[in-house]
Amino acid sequence: MLVNCVAYQEGKKLADIEQSQIREYLSRPGCFVWVALRDASEAELDSLSKEFDVPELALEDARHGHQRAKIEEYGTELFVVMQLIEHAGDELKVGEISIFTGPNYVFSVRNRTEQSFLGVRTRCEREPELLRQGPGYVLYALMDAVVDRYFPVLDAVEVELEGIEEKLFANTSPRANIEALYYVKQKLTTLKHAAGPLLEATGKLYGGRVPQICAGLGDYFRDVYDHLVRLNQTIDSMRDTVNTAIQVNLAMITIGESEVTKRLAAYAALVAVPTMIAGVYGMNFKEMPELNWAWGYPFALFLMVSIDVVLFWRFRRAGWL
Amino acid sequence: MLVNCVAYQEGKKLADIEQSQIREYLSRPGCFVWVALRDASEAELDSLSKEFDVPELALEDARHGHQRAKIEEYGTELFVVMQLIEHAGDELKVGEISIFTGPNYVFSVRNRTEQSFLGVRTRCEREPELLRQGPGYVLYALMDAVVDRYFPVLDAVEVELEGIEEKLFANTSPRANIEALYYVKQKLTTLKHAAGPLLEATGKLYGGRVPQICAGLGDYFRDVYDHLVRLNQTIDSMRDTVNTAIQVNLAMITIGESEVTKRLAAYAALVAVPTMIAGVYGMNFKEMPELNWAWGYPFALFLMVSIDVVLFWRFRRAGWL
Amino acid sequence: MLVNCVAYQEGKKLADIEQSQIREYLSRPGCFVWVALRDASEAELDSLSKEFDVPELALEDARHGHQRAKIEEYGTELFVVMQLIEHAGDELKVGEISIFTGPNYVFSVRNRTEQSFLGVRTRCEREPELLRQGPGYVLYALMDAVVDRYFPVLDAVEVELEGIEEKLFANTSPRANIEALYYVKQKLTTLKHAAGPLLEATGKLYGGRVPQICAGLGDYFRDVYDHLVRLNQTIDSMRDTVNTAIQVNLAMITIGESEVTKRLAAYAALVAVPTMIAGVYGMNFKEMPELNWAWGYPFALFLMVSIDVVLFWRFRRAGWL
Amino acid sequence: MLVNCVAYQEGKKLADIEQSQIREYLSRPGCFVWVALRDASEAELDSLSKEFDVPELALEDARHGHQRAKIEEYGTELFVVMQLIEHAGDELKVGEISIFTGPNYVFSVRNRTEQSFLGVRTRCEREPELLRQGPGYVLYALMDAVVDRYFPVLDAVEVELEGIEEKLFANTSPRANIEALYYVKQKLTTLKHAAGPLLEATGKLYGGRVPQICAGLGDYFRDVYDHLVRLNQTIDSMRDTVNTAIQVNLAMITIGESEVTKRLAAYAALVAVPTMIAGVYGMNFKEMPELNWAWGYPFALFLMVSIDVVLFWRFRRAGWL
Amino acid sequence: MLVNCVAYQEGKKLADIEQSQIREYLSRPGCFVWVALRDASEAELDSLSKEFDVPELALEDARHGHQRAKIEEYGTELFVVMQLIEHAGDELKVGEISIFTGPNYVFSVRNRTEQSFLGVRTRCEREPELLRQGPGYVLYALMDAVVDRYFPVLDAVEVELEGIEEKLFANTSPRANIEALYYVKQKLTTLKHAAGPLLEATGKLYGGRVPQICAGLGDYFRDVYDHLVRLNQTIDSMRDTVNTAIQVNLAMITIGESEVTKRLAAYAALVAVPTMIAGVYGMNFKEMPELNWAWGYPFALFLMVSIDVVLFWRFRRAGWL
Repeated sequence: MLVNCVAYQEGKKLADIEQSQIREYLSRPGCFVWVALRDASEAELDSLSKEFDVPELALEDARHGHQRAKIEEYGTELFVVMQLIEHAGDELKVGEISIFTGPNYVFSVRNRTEQSFLGVRTRCEREPELLRQGPGYVLYALMDAVVDRYFPVLDAVEVELEGIEEKLFANTSPRANIEALYYVKQKLTTLKHAAGPLLEATGKLYGGRVPQICAGLGDYFRDVYDHLVRLNQTIDSMRDTVNTAIQVNLAMITIGESEVTKRLAAYAALVAVPTMIAGVYGMNFKEMPELNWAWGYPFALFLMVSIDVVLFWRFRRAGWL
Repeated sequence: MLVNCVAYQEGKKLADIEQSQIREYLSRPGCFVWVALRDASEAELDSLSKEFDVPELALEDARHGHQRAKIEEYGTELFVVMQLIEHAGDELKVGEISIFTGPNYVFSVRNRTEQSFLGVRTRCEREPELLRQGPGYVLYALMDAVVDRYFPVLDAVEVELEGIEEKLFANTSPRANIEALYYVKQKLTTLKHAAGPLLEATGKLYGGRVPQICAGLGDYFRDVYDHLVRLNQTIDSMRDTVNTAIQVNLAMITIGESEVTKRLAAYAALVAVPTMIAGVYGMNFKEMPELNWAWGYPFALFLMVSIDVVLFWRFRRAGWL
Repeated sequence: MLVNCVAYQEGKKLADIEQSQIREYLSRPGCFVWVALRDASEAELDSLSKEFDVPELALEDARHGHQRAKIEEYGTELFVVMQLIEHAGDELKVGEISIFTGPNYVFSVRNRTEQSFLGVRTRCEREPELLRQGPGYVLYALMDAVVDRYFPVLDAVEVELEGIEEKLFANTSPRANIEALYYVKQKLTTLKHAAGPLLEATGKLYGGRVPQICAGLGDYFRDVYDHLVRLNQTIDSMRDTVNTAIQVNLAMITIGESEVTKRLAAYAALVAVPTMIAGVYGMNFKEMPELNWAWGYPFALFLMVSIDVVLFWRFRRAGWL
Repeated sequence: MLVNCVAYQEGKKLADIEQSQIREYLSRPGCFVWVALRDASEAELDSLSKEFDVPELALEDARHGHQRAKIEEYGTELFVVMQLIEHAGDELKVGEISIFTGPNYVFSVRNRTEQSFLGVRTRCEREPELLRQGPGYVLYALMDAVVDRYFPVLDAVEVELEGIEEKLFANTSPRANIEALYYVKQKLTTLKHAAGPLLEATGKLYGGRVPQICAGLGDYFRDVYDHLVRLNQTIDSMRDTVNTAIQVNLAMITIGESEVTKRLAAYAALVAVPTMIAGVYGMNFKEMPELNWAWGYPFALFLMVSIDVVLFWRFRRAGWL
Repeated sequence: MLVNCVAYQEGKKLADIEQSQIREYLSRPGCFVWVALRDASEAELDSLSKEFDVPELALEDARHGHQRAKIEEYGTELFVVMQLIEHAGDELKVGEISIFTGPNYVFSVRNRTEQSFLGVRTRCEREPELLRQGPGYVLYALMDAVVDRYFPVLDAVEVELEGIEEKLFANTSPRANIEALYYVKQKLTTLKHAAGPLLEATGKLYGGRVPQICAGLGDYFRDVYDHLVRLNQTIDSMRDTVNTAIQVNLAMITIGESEVTKRLAAYAALVAVPTMIAGVYGMNFKEMPELNWAWGYPFALFLMVSIDVVLFWRFRRAGWL
């Protein structure tokens, strides 16, 4: 579905144009066209990509979808794929944006995502002195928006992890904890898959030799890179934390089990000792003086209770009860 | 066994030729020969490799088989080994394709595999404008086919892993889970052995100095490289997931054990307490007033049952039963 | 809040100046201005940064805060962010100092921290022959101060870890140990986040091509780098120690559980055997010679006690009691 | 002990020579001497090394033995140390071969090993067109032989590991399994110590600048390198497998323990319930109607047995028995 | 404390000199001074370092002590810090040697260590043709001595580890084993801290651009480097072994616990079954034919004993007893 198709010149919007007018605007000097598609059918993709002479291999990747994040150079053109991540209920949903840029066009397709990039376009149009820099600046603005949208997702996962941490040492629900930790780790892996390859690729857009489209925008792309570094470091240290938490959870379970064993054993003792005494006085010997005592029975009961009291007190002191 | 032996010129098939005609076609300018063998006997290998002056060290590797994936340059010739992986029942079967290429020939041998590459040849012949680029393009087409065939295998392993994941937290069959996880990890190791070295080797076929045969095909080999990167990343993160799953499984087992211990202890208490009471009223003291009560026995039974009811209710509330 | 704003010339303090005078002093040759802000409002930040033409992207990072440690070059200017770490009760509190430096100014903003840098200014003013080197030397002095303040924090964590280590093998409070180890690891992660990226960034301030401001100060920045290397190595090996300690703690818990199991079993045996004997003599057979013995009852008691003594002695010898 | 001392010219054996003749043959153009020692005394080593002007530092290493595998250049000379590994009963025995090569000599000393290299010499003499390339080719032949001998050792360890794997899930002998896994890991470490440093060192004998002796033999040394890469990858993935297997073994032990606990608890229940019933009917109440029933005793026995049958059936169904 | 202060010329000792004469000897061409201090007071350090114009930053590091091992270049001077490790009872004690070298002096200070370097001086003086190479050679001799002294320390730790390994599978003292393994790991960390950074630093003293003092001594420093590589590899693989051993120990503990559980359960069964039988015959039914049998009591005892014998035999066969 075509979202918009606009021609710009000198950082200012010229007009919303039709697909048929693209070629004409592309040929005007200092003019560039910015087209946005979403969930494009194969026919739309093919017809539009022909207007821009998009390289065949890049187009095939965009058609297939489910690509890893990457930035590929084809002559003067750049093909950028980024993953878009959003929460869908308890899970993370992974969409994709493919951006084709050339010296005088930006052509983006987003798939399987609710995230809109209209805000990016509006913001760009509000700053004509920056937009004047052409498709490279649009590419930066899109990348910056994508990367900025990773942060709230990561923050939500962090909140989730902190929630588990609190329950970790309470040891109330080890089974739920371990399951939650497992899924937090899966989410971090999903985020890492989006942010990791993008970090590596973005590093080639500033400093040293850069694609022509990005020339003069080094500080901007370094800023995106810097955000990605921060993102990746946070993900990595959260993964490490999850690993430690899983180990700690295992230890807490074992400790809990050990404590339960002790408590059970203590209660078992409190029952077993009277049973033994009762057994003794249940013996059928002819000559058992206690049996004939008037206070024999109360004495036996007293013996049972007092031994249990002593035991109970000692178990309590030892921390078993 | 010879599969086919075809001569091409200007991207078009000239003729199916005999082994004896190879030399003649090799000497024609702009012509190249593409020979495919499978499960070749040593004699076949030797006689054919003589037609192409295959380097002795490469030939020895092909003869031995069980090589790691690699790409070696011998002057203007390239020797490529790739592993072919397919499911054989529950296990992965590893075959091999060795490809010798020179400026005017492609000579491939596949061993211990059911996978045919006739489709690759057909596809190449359908696109003469690409095949015109010669043996380098054939090499690309073969590598692309091999790498593309790794994906369904990996997908099958992923489905297997997801199946285990679901059972992981149900904790019904920890023994089967752990065994399944172990074999999933082995399969991932097998895939990694195929895809890891190939990634490294393919990286040298584009950008910077490349073997002469691959010149001008950089975008194609980068595409193969890109698929390999995706493959390797998926394998790596699945291996990490398996490791975590093994740990989680261990934790689930310990939790399960802990729950069983509690349940057992609870039932033990439900039996031990009546036994103790019975023991008390089994004592043989002369003076035990309860024994002479008319309702003594029902009272004792009532005592046993009511204590058990209280205990049962408390255990249930504590989640032990 | 403005802390101070001072102009220096030839390493000597000229005067405390007003914000409005900054431009004037900046234009004097051989003169530089050193401004320090803390917990600056956005308005203060904006108005001051205009005096120095601070790059917009850097300024935005400073405004947002919560940046990772980094050193960025913007033409002849440097933007440095360092994290400030201090103990707040049992936890580590992370603040931030952002330093903008150009050929003739140093402009620092510290946020969310109690740490003052007045001492650094005093020390610099006491050594005019060093301060003569300009903003680069001030940057060094600030970085050196920040890094030096990491050491006591790390030492405190090390003392904490050693305290846990001592309790580790006593196995008195495994639950507290594991919790303490977890939080020590979190603190080490916090420190690593501060020191790790700084190490990497500082490595670019000496040797090879360095930012113009740092020229001639290589030995000083290498010294900071060297301290950071030491810091990072200590953090890394402490993290490794914590990991091992968590594992060791788990083993100690299992050992402890195993010992408790044995002790319980031993006591259970001491109770079960007399109960069995009492059961035997509680049987109601007509013909049980022992029951009619005069010494039958003492004999039974003696049997119980003597078996228990033997068992007790054997359990003790086996180390179970 | 001197094994042999032979002079070669143009790839052909000239003569077995005496130590005293070495200098003479070394001075002949196009002639080189190949001396092999084994378990050399210090005197032998010293006297022979003087003939070849072996560098003092290299000689000292050879004298000490127990070096790591390495390749060192001393001007035009190369000093190569490789470890020789063979099975000695259940353990791996590590020997050493030190090779000194110069433009016109190869001087090898092997220590603490049964492995002979006579076969290498014979093979070299059979291919004069290759031996014609001089000491570099001899070095290649020796390295190739050493590396090829690692494979059967590694294969034996792999067979051992597969044997353990089979027993892993049978869970019959966890103690033996874990011990076996530990020693397999030790053996892999021994192999890694031999193959790892050699890989690194061999990488410098082809491509780019190579020692003069190895010039023109790049394809051969790349072949050795390639074998070492395969060896190292196999070792690494086997080490990873051993680690996983240790973890799996631990899980299997815990599962086994959990199953035993359940079985024990089930049997305990089968005993405890009749004991409780017997206790009830052992009470001494005056009024216990059942006691006077004619079928009271059979009824009690029937109660015990039937409860046990029900329990047994339920435990069986739950998989506890 | 000043240990010695000697002037050398052309590799030969000129004279033991006073501190006041140092300047004079330093000015003689081809002459160098070698001063050794130990546990120097700050005053001694300051007064001596002034004679040699030691760089201020290096001096400050030497004054503080507790530096990581490092090699720093200050113009034509080198500042080397190495850690000295010795066994002090059961623990490792870490001392330090700081070496300042310039074109015509070597000035070393050792702190907190019993290790003397008089032997190094004696050995150097015995080989004037090597000492003739000046301070660089002295530096090599000192570094070689320090590194050589790491080996016996590492060997002692290795012996300790082997001692633990033997006890590991005997499973007699898991608590002592785990504690011992923990401290072995700590010792290895201490050694790694000494040898790791030194390895990295030494790598810059040969090959490529080297500090002027080390020129022409490449083979010597490569030899030190080679020893350090061996040391580091041994440390790394021992650390890995310790990690595995900790895991194995945990598995052995769990196995041991599992075996104890089985044994206990078996004994419990041997007691519980007779108790149940006794309970049955302790019931008070009017009609219990066995009670009136003449051989009823012996029959009951026989029943108890024979069931126990059967159980005992089955437990033994199952390996539980």
